[in-house]
Amino acid sequence: MQMDSDSQAINCLLPGERLDDLQRNELLIIQNPERFCFGMDAVLLSGFARVKPGESVLDLGTGTGIVPILLEAKTPGIHFTGLEIQEESADMARRSVLLNHQQDKIDIVTGDIREASKIFGTSSFPVVTSNPPYMIAEHGLQNPSYARAVARHEVLCTLDDVVREASRVLTPGGRFYMIHRPFRLAEIVLALSSHHLELKRLRMVYPYVDKEPTMVLIEAIKYARPRVTVDPPLIIWNSPNEYTDEMKNDYGY
Amino acid sequence: MQMDSDSQAINCLLPGERLDDLQRNELLIIQNPERFCFGMDAVLLSGFARVKPGESVLDLGTGTGIVPILLEAKTPGIHFTGLEIQEESADMARRSVLLNHQQDKIDIVTGDIREASKIFGTSSFPVVTSNPPYMIAEHGLQNPSYARAVARHEVLCTLDDVVREASRVLTPGGRFYMIHRPFRLAEIVLALSSHHLELKRLRMVYPYVDKEPTMVLIEAIKYARPRVTVDPPLIIWNSPNEYTDEMKNDYGY
Repeated sequence: MQMDSDSQAINCLLPGERLDDLQRNELLIIQNPERFCFGMDAVLLSGFARVKPGESVLDLGTGTGIVPILLEAKTPGIHFTGLEIQEESADMARRSVLLNHQQDKIDIVTGDIREASKIFGTSSFPVVTSNPPYMIAEHGLQNPSYARAVARHEVLCTLDDVVREASRVLTPGGRFYMIHRPFRLAEIVLALSSHHLELKRLRMVYPYVDKEPTMVLIEAIKYARPRVTVDPPLIIWNSPNEYTDEMKNDYGY
Repeated sequence: MQMDSDSQAINCLLPGERLDDLQRNELLIIQNPERFCFGMDAVLLSGFARVKPGESVLDLGTGTGIVPILLEAKTPGIHFTGLEIQEESADMARRSVLLNHQQDKIDIVTGDIREASKIFGTSSFPVVTSNPPYMIAEHGLQNPSYARAVARHEVLCTLDDVVREASRVLTPGGRFYMIHRPFRLAEIVLALSSHHLELKRLRMVYPYVDKEPTMVLIEAIKYARPRVTVDPPLIIWNSPNEYTDEMKNDYGY
């Protein structure tokens, strides 16, 4: 089975692409290291998001499809849609879905996050996820590769665009899951609030127990009352060579 | 010296009051356990707040004066003012200040947080601190003792009152330090933002490394640009009988 998938995969790889094993349910993903490879953030987001039986999920800015591929494997959700503006990434995502035999559960749509509510309609998903670009477009050096720049910097969409479209496509009471950088936290809360999403749960991701967090996981609910639950800290490493038990047990690192 | 202070103190204690040793610089504090005793939150706030040489500090809702008493001892600030609405608490605070020979550096003013900018004038302090009531007035059981209820529940002032008055009395670029409960985090960010205060630093206080945080320390700056620094986690206990090294070394627990 693994061999079979692998040989199919090798046939469907384009120049520069490689096939990575997700170390879970024999899932594979096609990536192109010249463009952008998924990071730990996407994996953490797929573990933080809660998807209930029968729920459908929209992932905004899905890249090569890592979040829907992992959520399909990890959760009882009924259907997963990934929206990606870069056709090359969307194409890799679609081929990974086929390789993983997930085509009945996952759709990859090429399109612009800023148009999500036009593409899918308002109030169309109970769950939305996003691992959006973290960096403000004008800040610092942009990535020399355009594909990476789009994934990492707010070139094609801003935080406000992502939050606005998440809110529009969510049903009332629907849940939005996002991973982002802690330095944007105040902007995140304000953007959520301005689009009728209430921050309900937050988890700080600390590389070590004595270091500043590098990521923050967010759950917001549409039209909810204010009350935040902050989860226990998620700590990545015990030492430079050893992941914490949670990372090993829950995320397969 | 200690004996001398203690004997003065015993002379100035009212019925029901007791004298506690702050375990730092021979500082003492008068408290009445029937009313309200300061908690770890005030101690953590006094460690989190940064006060530079020559700066004056206003503590909103100072209770028995724990925050100005500790800040005077810990920081190079030039002057400290505590504002407290309950006369009995303010009176205990004033007697503690005298006992500690801090009367040239600390003033305790009886008054209402909601009137702070009228009492002190706008743009009058570079630093404001507050350990305000955490609980929304209508939530849950209020404390049967009125004095405790005022200290713990938003009976006499709301979060918005505290933040609004902090902003008004702060100079442009001035810093506001507050300790609060994590479940109010979204409300805190929104209140800060609506009063021209930008959340700039945040530290989560976790009782244990694998538990939800019980407190959050906040630094906000008036008229600043958005960018949050989240500090390493502050963890209180290694085990039920052992404080972490940080608590022992930095806070004297």
